[in-house]
Amino acid sequence: MELKQPYLLFLGDAADPLAAKVAQGIKTWRPNSCVGQLRLEGCNADVGLEDLTIDHAVQAGAKTLVIGVANRGGIISEQWISVLIEALEAGMDIAAGLHNKLADIPQLVACAEKHGRSLFDVRYPTQSYPVASGIKRSGKRLLTVGTDCSVGKMYTSLAIDKEMQAQGLDSDFRATGQTGILITGSGVSVDCVVADFIAGAIESISPANDENHWDVIEGQGSLFHASFAGVTMGLIHGSQPDAIVLCHEPTREHMRGLPDYSLPELAPCIEANLAAAKLTNPNVQCVGISVNTSNLSEEEALRYMDKVESAFDIPVVDPFRQGVSRIVAKLKEL
Amino acid sequence: MELKQPYLLFLGDAADPLAAKVAQGIKTWRPNSCVGQLRLEGCNADVGLEDLTIDHAVQAGAKTLVIGVANRGGIISEQWISVLIEALEAGMDIAAGLHNKLADIPQLVACAEKHGRSLFDVRYPTQSYPVASGIKRSGKRLLTVGTDCSVGKMYTSLAIDKEMQAQGLDSDFRATGQTGILITGSGVSVDCVVADFIAGAIESISPANDENHWDVIEGQGSLFHASFAGVTMGLIHGSQPDAIVLCHEPTREHMRGLPDYSLPELAPCIEANLAAAKLTNPNVQCVGISVNTSNLSEEEALRYMDKVESAFDIPVVDPFRQGVSRIVAKLKEL
Repeated sequence: MELKQPYLLFLGDAADPLAAKVAQGIKTWRPNSCVGQLRLEGCNADVGLEDLTIDHAVQAGAKTLVIGVANRGGIISEQWISVLIEALEAGMDIAAGLHNKLADIPQLVACAEKHGRSLFDVRYPTQSYPVASGIKRSGKRLLTVGTDCSVGKMYTSLAIDKEMQAQGLDSDFRATGQTGILITGSGVSVDCVVADFIAGAIESISPANDENHWDVIEGQGSLFHASFAGVTMGLIHGSQPDAIVLCHEPTREHMRGLPDYSLPELAPCIEANLAAAKLTNPNVQCVGISVNTSNLSEEEALRYMDKVESAFDIPVVDPFRQGVSRIVAKLKEL
Repeated sequence: MELKQPYLLFLGDAADPLAAKVAQGIKTWRPNSCVGQLRLEGCNADVGLEDLTIDHAVQAGAKTLVIGVANRGGIISEQWISVLIEALEAGMDIAAGLHNKLADIPQLVACAEKHGRSLFDVRYPTQSYPVASGIKRSGKRLLTVGTDCSVGKMYTSLAIDKEMQAQGLDSDFRATGQTGILITGSGVSVDCVVADFIAGAIESISPANDENHWDVIEGQGSLFHASFAGVTMGLIHGSQPDAIVLCHEPTREHMRGLPDYSLPELAPCIEANLAAAKLTNPNVQCVGISVNTSNLSEEEALRYMDKVESAFDIPVVDPFRQGVSRIVAKLKEL
């Protein structure tokens, strides 16, 4: 799945800025991949790009209209469809990461076919993946893992990739979820792959590479999440990581979606992830802890991170507050 | 997925007895579910049931023709199709666990529709499963786990279920692979479920039950298999096992399909499986080790099992040689 860039970001009738967080993510991490935004009447979000019509976007070079907004229930409304038809007719592909598929809307399918355009439902893999071989691949790999779901693994991965490039290292961000795929234009939504092929899908999206090249692979779920740990396990094995970074949200009261399950302690969580990763890469190391401190004051955040860093003796940072340069410095020592 | 019993076992033109091992498994574990076998000219297998024509099988009560034979490449030959058509016309459903689907053969689909019959491709889940809730279910559960794939997890599970019933305990075998589903008539081929729903599928096929009821759940893969450990992990979490039995084949030289990977030692393998299982059932215990000693002499087998039993102090048996009564006795102590 390879999306053509640059994008026109469709914000639709977003109820609030949070509803357009996918568009915001693309703008934040790939500003040069975006020619502008398209907002409908009543849109309450603005990612700070120029407002363009479909025609102006095409003139500016847009190749794909990306639906960067989530409606309640992930529904693709009638009002949206007329805009999407216009985009297809003007020569753009359409990409979305919603539960409801573009490919299930006959009008869009017919229009795309007529104009030779493509519809990308990035949440749903369209290709078959092989069973993982477990054979060691050349090149280096970093994988983000987590104490829980939704603790900042994608953000941390993108921040590390960006910092590595800023420091002159050769790296690629490898997306494993729909938002990551829309941001970078390729990847696999690994939790939607058939179970037998989880590790194989990751081997496919992170192929052998130059010895000094780093793939920064977006983690999913948590080995300690009772619903999704199978995905995490396969992702770890397929990644063959040289380095892992543990992501954590210290104010979370229970595992996401599981009120009866508390979060793991950091030490056994790191240990379990390293033990799993050693199966396919015995040299794996934990090179940092990424803390999402958005629910803490600056002072509380610094105190918390100091405490954790003393205990583990590896860089502990909030990528949003302090960046990840200390983690990248640690990586260079490997 | 619920298959109607009893079955007529279709052995086709099996090249040798091994090609009909699915039929043999059904006959061994569910003799009362079979009215007979159907063999074509040149069939070199015989599972010891009466040879019946389609008509005689229907008269004897057969509700489903089960394809109990694997061709090279899992192909459904032209010669087979005429027999399957005859079975549908005579009022039977058809079930198969092959890679190639019955549902992809237009002739069969049309014939089944015309006669109001069903085609069951048990390898491919047809229902959606929920995300696992992780909520503790009533009833007791045993899960077989393994050092590797294909070391006897299904056989051990079926043997334990049978022995429990012989000892007056209340139990059900829960199938997680295609052969197990054909044997028992229901279950889920868990490695073909979408990754997000692995644990949820297992929660579904092993629902809450009486406090003294045991589900004996068929394991898949191994936490130490670089291709399939994700499946195993989700299966462990969804099972919430009170007890695990480790299955092992002591002469295996490397992990199945992975020449670069050696088998894990038994102690860390038990430890890793218990650690994973504790997430959803903190009281889990390992109650036995099941050794497939088919490649050892009787004397070598006994010597090996003695040695392992001294080291672990739990029953170590080969279900085929000695039965599993000692494991069931251990279960009763829980």
